Amino acid sequence: MSTVLKDVPDKKMAIVTGRAYPKLAHDTAAYLHTDVLETTAYDFANGEMYVRFTEPVRGADVFVMQSHTTPINKWIMEQLIMVDALKRASARTINVVAPFLGYSRQDKKHLGREPITARLVCNLFAAAGADRIMTVDLHASQEQGFFNGPVDHLTAMPILLDYVQNSMDLSNATIVSPDAGRIKVSEKWAANLGHLPLAFIHKTRDTSRPNHAVAHGIIGDIQGRDCIVIDDIIDTAGTICEAIRTLHEHGARSVTLAATHGLLSGPAVERLRESDVREIILTDTVPIPEEKHLDNMTVLSIAPLLASGIRSVFQSRSMATLLTGLPDGVKPRNIYAN
Amino acid sequence: MSTVLKDVPDKKMAIVTGRAYPKLAHDTAAYLHTDVLETTAYDFANGEMYVRFTEPVRGADVFVMQSHTTPINKWIMEQLIMVDALKRASARTINVVAPFLGYSRQDKKHLGREPITARLVCNLFAAAGADRIMTVDLHASQEQGFFNGPVDHLTAMPILLDYVQNSMDLSNATIVSPDAGRIKVSEKWAANLGHLPLAFIHKTRDTSRPNHAVAHGIIGDIQGRDCIVIDDIIDTAGTICEAIRTLHEHGARSVTLAATHGLLSGPAVERLRESDVREIILTDTVPIPEEKHLDNMTVLSIAPLLASGIRSVFQSRSMATLLTGLPDGVKPRNIYAN
Amino acid sequence: MSTVLKDVPDKKMAIVTGRAYPKLAHDTAAYLHTDVLETTAYDFANGEMYVRFTEPVRGADVFVMQSHTTPINKWIMEQLIMVDALKRASARTINVVAPFLGYSRQDKKHLGREPITARLVCNLFAAAGADRIMTVDLHASQEQGFFNGPVDHLTAMPILLDYVQNSMDLSNATIVSPDAGRIKVSEKWAANLGHLPLAFIHKTRDTSRPNHAVAHGIIGDIQGRDCIVIDDIIDTAGTICEAIRTLHEHGARSVTLAATHGLLSGPAVERLRESDVREIILTDTVPIPEEKHLDNMTVLSIAPLLASGIRSVFQSRSMATLLTGLPDGVKPRNIYAN
Amino acid sequence: MSTVLKDVPDKKMAIVTGRAYPKLAHDTAAYLHTDVLETTAYDFANGEMYVRFTEPVRGADVFVMQSHTTPINKWIMEQLIMVDALKRASARTINVVAPFLGYSRQDKKHLGREPITARLVCNLFAAAGADRIMTVDLHASQEQGFFNGPVDHLTAMPILLDYVQNSMDLSNATIVSPDAGRIKVSEKWAANLGHLPLAFIHKTRDTSRPNHAVAHGIIGDIQGRDCIVIDDIIDTAGTICEAIRTLHEHGARSVTLAATHGLLSGPAVERLRESDVREIILTDTVPIPEEKHLDNMTVLSIAPLLASGIRSVFQSRSMATLLTGLPDGVKPRNIYAN
Amino acid sequence: MSTVLKDVPDKKMAIVTGRAYPKLAHDTAAYLHTDVLETTAYDFANGEMYVRFTEPVRGADVFVMQSHTTPINKWIMEQLIMVDALKRASARTINVVAPFLGYSRQDKKHLGREPITARLVCNLFAAAGADRIMTVDLHASQEQGFFNGPVDHLTAMPILLDYVQNSMDLSNATIVSPDAGRIKVSEKWAANLGHLPLAFIHKTRDTSRPNHAVAHGIIGDIQGRDCIVIDDIIDTAGTICEAIRTLHEHGARSVTLAATHGLLSGPAVERLRESDVREIILTDTVPIPEEKHLDNMTVLSIAPLLASGIRSVFQSRSMATLLTGLPDGVKPRNIYAN
Amino acid sequence: MSTVLKDVPDKKMAIVTGRAYPKLAHDTAAYLHTDVLETTAYDFANGEMYVRFTEPVRGADVFVMQSHTTPINKWIMEQLIMVDALKRASARTINVVAPFLGYSRQDKKHLGREPITARLVCNLFAAAGADRIMTVDLHASQEQGFFNGPVDHLTAMPILLDYVQNSMDLSNATIVSPDAGRIKVSEKWAANLGHLPLAFIHKTRDTSRPNHAVAHGIIGDIQGRDCIVIDDIIDTAGTICEAIRTLHEHGARSVTLAATHGLLSGPAVERLRESDVREIILTDTVPIPEEKHLDNMTVLSIAPLLASGIRSVFQSRSMATLLTGLPDGVKPRNIYAN
Repeated sequence: MSTVLKDVPDKKMAIVTGRAYPKLAHDTAAYLHTDVLETTAYDFANGEMYVRFTEPVRGADVFVMQSHTTPINKWIMEQLIMVDALKRASARTINVVAPFLGYSRQDKKHLGREPITARLVCNLFAAAGADRIMTVDLHASQEQGFFNGPVDHLTAMPILLDYVQNSMDLSNATIVSPDAGRIKVSEKWAANLGHLPLAFIHKTRDTSRPNHAVAHGIIGDIQGRDCIVIDDIIDTAGTICEAIRTLHEHGARSVTLAATHGLLSGPAVERLRESDVREIILTDTVPIPEEKHLDNMTVLSIAPLLASGIRSVFQSRSMATLLTGLPDGVKPRNIYAN
Repeated sequence: MSTVLKDVPDKKMAIVTGRAYPKLAHDTAAYLHTDVLETTAYDFANGEMYVRFTEPVRGADVFVMQSHTTPINKWIMEQLIMVDALKRASARTINVVAPFLGYSRQDKKHLGREPITARLVCNLFAAAGADRIMTVDLHASQEQGFFNGPVDHLTAMPILLDYVQNSMDLSNATIVSPDAGRIKVSEKWAANLGHLPLAFIHKTRDTSRPNHAVAHGIIGDIQGRDCIVIDDIIDTAGTICEAIRTLHEHGARSVTLAATHGLLSGPAVERLRESDVREIILTDTVPIPEEKHLDNMTVLSIAPLLASGIRSVFQSRSMATLLTGLPDGVKPRNIYAN
Repeated sequence: MSTVLKDVPDKKMAIVTGRAYPKLAHDTAAYLHTDVLETTAYDFANGEMYVRFTEPVRGADVFVMQSHTTPINKWIMEQLIMVDALKRASARTINVVAPFLGYSRQDKKHLGREPITARLVCNLFAAAGADRIMTVDLHASQEQGFFNGPVDHLTAMPILLDYVQNSMDLSNATIVSPDAGRIKVSEKWAANLGHLPLAFIHKTRDTSRPNHAVAHGIIGDIQGRDCIVIDDIIDTAGTICEAIRTLHEHGARSVTLAATHGLLSGPAVERLRESDVREIILTDTVPIPEEKHLDNMTVLSIAPLLASGIRSVFQSRSMATLLTGLPDGVKPRNIYAN
Repeated sequence: MSTVLKDVPDKKMAIVTGRAYPKLAHDTAAYLHTDVLETTAYDFANGEMYVRFTEPVRGADVFVMQSHTTPINKWIMEQLIMVDALKRASARTINVVAPFLGYSRQDKKHLGREPITARLVCNLFAAAGADRIMTVDLHASQEQGFFNGPVDHLTAMPILLDYVQNSMDLSNATIVSPDAGRIKVSEKWAANLGHLPLAFIHKTRDTSRPNHAVAHGIIGDIQGRDCIVIDDIIDTAGTICEAIRTLHEHGARSVTLAATHGLLSGPAVERLRESDVREIILTDTVPIPEEKHLDNMTVLSIAPLLASGIRSVFQSRSMATLLTGLPDGVKPRNIYAN
Repeated sequence: MSTVLKDVPDKKMAIVTGRAYPKLAHDTAAYLHTDVLETTAYDFANGEMYVRFTEPVRGADVFVMQSHTTPINKWIMEQLIMVDALKRASARTINVVAPFLGYSRQDKKHLGREPITARLVCNLFAAAGADRIMTVDLHASQEQGFFNGPVDHLTAMPILLDYVQNSMDLSNATIVSPDAGRIKVSEKWAANLGHLPLAFIHKTRDTSRPNHAVAHGIIGDIQGRDCIVIDDIIDTAGTICEAIRTLHEHGARSVTLAATHGLLSGPAVERLRESDVREIILTDTVPIPEEKHLDNMTVLSIAPLLASGIRSVFQSRSMATLLTGLPDGVKPRNIYAN
Repeated sequence: MSTVLKDVPDKKMAIVTGRAYPKLAHDTAAYLHTDVLETTAYDFANGEMYVRFTEPVRGADVFVMQSHTTPINKWIMEQLIMVDALKRASARTINVVAPFLGYSRQDKKHLGREPITARLVCNLFAAAGADRIMTVDLHASQEQGFFNGPVDHLTAMPILLDYVQNSMDLSNATIVSPDAGRIKVSEKWAANLGHLPLAFIHKTRDTSRPNHAVAHGIIGDIQGRDCIVIDDIIDTAGTICEAIRTLHEHGARSVTLAATHGLLSGPAVERLRESDVREIILTDTVPIPEEKHLDNMTVLSIAPLLASGIRSVFQSRSMATLLTGLPDGVKPRNIYAN
């Protein structure tokens, strides 16, 4: 009788999702020809949450999807609880998929005695037991270094670019950065669209309240141009709507807006409705419900990108192509299109 | 010129508080003849929070107070962010004060693929940078072992006991445990009140939904007795109100309720109002606002206990006496008393 | 020539055992149709131990079995040394199997300046390199949270229940908890045996010496009943023998005793021999040698349960069924039966 | 006889330095009215280094200074060795002072399979035993989050600004960012100098070789202006000299260059000598030896800033004022001034 | 009212001891003019141990003394439990004092699949919460690197040397190493005693059973010499008695034996009694009880060395002098002298 | 549709190399019938290094080879950067192969306030993300315990022994240890070559400057013998050439030198050229370039040993045979032979 028992190894993958935006997980699973693993999750009366996976996850590579949308602290906590449960249930690897990583704008100390909450969030996922973070278009690329394991940092740019190239006449277009900090991304857009001209809006920040900025003027030429304003996040849309107004004041022929994360918080929808913007192009890294949807808003599904990323991880294939083009055979899909 | 510079060391303490229940921090600071250190904290439109300490905390022993009340995930997250900011601001030690520790009832796996969220919460505070946790009446004492550093586990029992002894005739009293798992605490109450008789309500649990229980009957004699039902937490008050009803059905002369944590979630206040309970005695480890306050409800301040605990930590004095009696010179105070 | 070399992966399992109770490992291996991997282990003259695995363990999932019996500190240390050796020998995973987890009763601080030795033991195994702990009937379920990785917490209840159901007339039976802290387990027994009546023995504890208790009286009705006393551990049998005596004094018709862990320390065997107990039903999570075996003692093998647990881990199958019933096709086996 | 021995505590500080730029440590110590603690350090024949502190450091807050200049890997390693020695010698706290943090430009992955070496360097210091990092003008502020403890991130801007304000006529000045990624810093300069106009040089990067860029054109108006080009690092000066040339081609009246870190690697000095730059203003976060010094180069001492930072840490005072102005009573000092 | 509370800091020290050799702790405390802090410690019937400190230790620098004598695993475990209790009781620093570090001879892998138990022991103390290890004459100096914090590695050599110098005529003496691995220590002895001649006994080892060696011959000249055999540990005394016999066979005039750690396990005392040794000089890093004491055995107290080490740690003074000479004003003391 | 996706697992291996000695990696890969994975690596002008793997490494067991030769700090840092990049690129395991482990001679504190740099180096590799270290002939075997994971400690002794046995007449040979600390290795050589006689050179060390030693005399008989001096490292060759001279002065007939690591630093080659040594036998754990090669120097390739070690790790086979003999079918190969 041998003292070492052998078995045929297998390799299993499962996708689980929190309750913030389950549709995204189902869309992603569909691209992978699988389904989301069933999970029991509910709130107790005092707001504590309960989570349990209904099917076994032992030995599986599990992808835990959650959209860090409002109420964001609740959904981050739910995802942490899911990671804890997976760890104790003997998942082989635990892969956090957070297409928009909450708190990613709090990535440094502007003043003494501030937190670096983006690093904290990475620390929390690590403490819960996460092996990897997959996310899309971090506010600052440096945040890849906030997690000490692999970070699969995907970009929605190929999806957005493809849509813009196929839906707009770019002969008179100028890429506009709404903010000095975003110019590098705008440079990439300009280069990818055939070296379009570039401009940026110059402003100063009130350092005592992060993310509150005052626009000043435009550097670069936008007179009579079809401006494409590129941003990573549309939150309250205050800055961006001021940018749109400024561009029109300086003679822009039209303004189009493209961004990865459409948080659309507070007054955002009202502001965008009232602004003179030709089209707003977003992805659904956070859910954009019917009531926030405008007629001139295009919401491209981020699911094919996530599905390709998950497949690469599970099959140990390089993800390099995902960083420069669309996944094979994938066309951007407007989730509000008929 | 010497190569080693010497300085007179000092020892500083600061109390900071999250926004869940600042009054408790101010009450606690008052017992210590100090004030709460000023903090800037607000929500961004998408629900992310910003925290900054307005005054220096370098080299200080900082006590970070937060009440884990609804919305509980937000307030836990805020406290984690405060810990992160303190760590980066060079606090000497970071002491988490959470009088009611959120998720403390999720302390074990009843079924496979469940989390142990109470351990997770301890891991999160450790990951953020906490050196110590101070809390009151954990759901299970074993949870002291969930944090790998010092846990100052205080008990509100002396405060509750003192009030009961001074406000009730105990000659006909019986201590009742509403639940098999609480009998040990009831035994302590019975012993401290002069070896009163003991009874408990026997029920079974539906393991698929934690904290949902079905009462069955009473073990022990409560006919014609003044029952004092002891619990650690009053959450939705479903179990406890059923216990009150059961006790009356079995001939109890009166029923008094004493518990440390008055979460009073969802239907709790309505249920308690309609139940035949003589008096409800709670502490304010979580805030009990006016609208949840009933005429027969006594809310004893937990601040003197926390102040004594904090003083012991800061001055490196033993906390042993706090576990068995009231802090010196302190009388329980009903925060709703005139 | 390719730069990436590929190979067919395999998956190997090995069982190793310390010297505390090798028979249990051999019994367990037999259920898995394998054998225990050969190990060299001996003591040096000053009590230091030497351990070496005679066969390769590289890349294997290794299950390190040890029974935490007397001399318990030696056997815990030996198991830690085995874990260290496996880590340095490139085992793929190291799974600690401790059917009775030593020190599991020291799971909280009753007084200031006490250790939480159960947490310490988990920390030690983690520090040595353990990936997982498999154990049976922890003194408190919360201890699952003391180890930060997967804990496979099995229960001997199905084995004990099955034996009781097949060997006793339960028509007149009452389940008795010898201790307030054990009532929940008794509730489960009562429910599993067709909702039998329940009673418990009420006592107080001398907090200055853990585990030393003084019995007081019985809550619930046991007059003329066949009492089945349920406990997790029979150590010196002092408490339990007092319980048996108390039950007879209160009119019990018979008393049967069922427990998972038969430590039978010090005067236990003598006390049990002299007590009026119908039958003592135990498992062999710790060895029960001939000299401790009484005629009315049944020792059920824990090996089939451990074998099923190990098989589930190795094959990444859910362990959920093990928590509620007997492993498929397994019948409890009295290791002292002819 | 008491069982607890008491002693008067003291608080000691020591400064030690590696061999990269000992003068900076001596200058810094002089501002603190102390001296550098004596250290033995030399190379073995195979390039391994030996370090030993000649005086005791037990219980001291030690500041380990090293300038990450060429040969940079050697000097980082020496500083790591010093940290290790301090840890084993029972220093109370170990504070790494690296005015220019090596590898800080490798702060993210541009392509798959790249390292994030700036995070690695922080991990290495943490692994060696560092409690804190003090540095000046990180390439990206986000890198504060790469170290999980306190990072005292000082800025040389007040020193550079003060010098510029006192040495130049700013009535016709424009602040120029040589790179889209640096615009935010330029905005701060512009604001601090009375809201001067702003311009930036727009270029694209060859992503296969980091730090190699190709300039394209100027966004903003610099015709006839006295341009002040702001950068954090002057390395080979290729980019910056191309910027100077471009500015002159576009009609700049004069070009002044201000930067914190004057690495002046390889062809830098030759390029700067041949470029049409009015003045080059640097600090000595890395040593600028005589042979690299040009007549139109001003090297301001960084020592008073470091001394103030060290004093704040040692005395647990807030460092906030250091971020916005010069340390009290300090005037920028040109280390090459007569 | 200020928001930051200040207090006068103090600095407290306490010595606690396990039960292995409390006399050594009391002797050490006496040199420090203090007493050992009272501790409750006892065994439960199944061999588990209970430990509790009777007096407060909050904020104190605690030195946890234990002698790793037989039963060694029990005493190591007791010391680990004490460290755990101190950590949870908020000791400021926890300093493990183990004059003989158990398992220090298992410091490397001779064969595959062996543990490195000396490293494991260091890991266990670190996991329990130890900040420092103080020990005497490790089997290999490299083991200082097994603990990742400060190791105060003291040597008994000054004590032994002083005794030898004052009690022997060294004019005809030769230092003998009983083992090739000990020659470096012998060289130090020879140098310190005025460059005495040196010899060593050459043997080979049976690698399948560590510590079992076979002597071969003598390298160096010992004919007619007074041989002083130096060793670190006398365990079963097999090797050393064979060395004594070999020396006499080769013409030694007398043989004296000096070693730090007198484990004197198993047949050691009998062997030494029967061997032709002039004098056996040991220290009491492990207890040497009356029944192991021989007439020609001198047991020098290690307490003054430990007391000096503890004083240096507590007062943050350099320990360098302890490595080269006797603590000030201390004379070696034979604990069996009248 | 199933919710768990399955895939056929594979197992991939890749070898990458730093720039210190790429030939060794290519030689090793050739023995494994594979090639080295392509890597981009270069220096920036200030000495910072850039590394990127050109091909995917996701899911692969990667062996990162680097020779710790001069400039040693640079090459260690490059290897650390490679490990960081592999971690972030999702390699399955990261195996550091450092045939000569830099700083391995700084393995203990000789004096207070020294580092233990060998432990530091292990800590740095662990912090970067290494899972395993493979190395050859550590200066002290105890250093295996400096890394807390598996250390595959190979020995070049079988390669050197085989060469000596096949190239020399051993009938008159004596094994000589140049240093008291190396005698154990010499004993193994003597045993393996048919129990040859043994001698050692006795010297004392100047503790203020490690590695600087002063030779004294010879213990053992070497008159008229063919001496084979065994060492682990030939660094500056000062000690060893003095040994050669001493041996000749004491009447040796010839002196042959065998060592694993031929660092040949500084004056080594000149010293060896001028010394009266018959043959110098080394391996190429560090590169020995043409200009250091002497006519009487034999450099045996270490590649077959490393290849066998790597194969064992990748295929999870025992490495035990590598410790006692040559890998199957391998003959030592002089890399300078025609």
